[in-house]
Amino acid sequence: MYYPEPIAKLIDAFSKLPGIGNKTAARLAFHALRMKEEEVVDFAKALVNVKRNLTYCSVCCNITDVDPCRLCQDKHRDQSVICVVQEPKDVIAMERTKEFQGLYHVLNGAISPMEGIGPDEIRIAELLRRLTDEKVKELILATNPNIEGEATAMYLSKLVKPFGLKVTRIAHGLPVGGDLEYADEVTLSKALEGRRELL
Amino acid sequence: MYYPEPIAKLIDAFSKLPGIGNKTAARLAFHALRMKEEEVVDFAKALVNVKRNLTYCSVCCNITDVDPCRLCQDKHRDQSVICVVQEPKDVIAMERTKEFQGLYHVLNGAISPMEGIGPDEIRIAELLRRLTDEKVKELILATNPNIEGEATAMYLSKLVKPFGLKVTRIAHGLPVGGDLEYADEVTLSKALEGRRELL
Repeated sequence: MYYPEPIAKLIDAFSKLPGIGNKTAARLAFHALRMKEEEVVDFAKALVNVKRNLTYCSVCCNITDVDPCRLCQDKHRDQSVICVVQEPKDVIAMERTKEFQGLYHVLNGAISPMEGIGPDEIRIAELLRRLTDEKVKELILATNPNIEGEATAMYLSKLVKPFGLKVTRIAHGLPVGGDLEYADEVTLSKALEGRRELL
Repeated sequence: MYYPEPIAKLIDAFSKLPGIGNKTAARLAFHALRMKEEEVVDFAKALVNVKRNLTYCSVCCNITDVDPCRLCQDKHRDQSVICVVQEPKDVIAMERTKEFQGLYHVLNGAISPMEGIGPDEIRIAELLRRLTDEKVKELILATNPNIEGEATAMYLSKLVKPFGLKVTRIAHGLPVGGDLEYADEVTLSKALEGRRELL
């Protein structure tokens, strides 16, 4: 006794998503069965449209529905600073701070020998091309503070040396609202190392 | 700064699913963006097909792609016993035991005054219609062992009394492989209450 084929196929499709096991996939598929038909059709369209109507910005490699993307088109943004991030999500996270007014470059990944991702698999060539523009004065490396992110930042900082730019790395330290007691040793030593004089 | 519209729509669609918050929805949507186009199209088709190609069996109210469903059509199954369950998933769970050879009736819900679900919202009328068939000798109430399931079982047992059937409820007790120490008091007292003599 198995599920009828249509529901089995949907369970299978859901279970291929990251972090979704068989039980959750079954729960989601049965939920879809109870949704209104137009909601399900909208969901299906949204899925297909995300593949068909989105491309990568030819400048910053972020995902976008217009090319160049809205951020790259925005003339009010500071053209002298490029913030390098790993993923499109990171751009959103940075934008939420409302602190950064420069441009972005989305690598769409990080160097990870373990997963066989080398410098050619991520959008580094596109970044180098942008650096030939004399307007660019500073490169902020905002890759994730983990092994892959650090390795990518190190690799990039060496690679862009010939351009004579200011290259910076976002600070490591204790998260705001965090607890010294629960901070891991590495974060704490980074926080110490990066201490600043109070003025 | 927001996500481009196609991805925002997909995030929105995912976040409407039960147990999926905004962050998970964003993660899933970005995963979809990285899937192959044909995979995404298959996913979208599976979603729509689950609504369009599945119906409820006119006999047992289980979901099915043929009517009556394969279980109701199967002449080898014991026509004298009907096992009443809440959800189509429960039929699969029962079938996995390979112990039960009778027929099923899927209520597609349980009585829950809290959620405004009364006896008319679930498939009780269809069950009563089946009981007029003289072949039926026993009704096994296999609704969930929680408040709604118990209430539904109680309601049904009273309702079907006039039919003069044998009405049984699945046993409550300790799950096999469970630990006495960690069993809650209600389960443990049910296990005591339902104790059986060893022969």
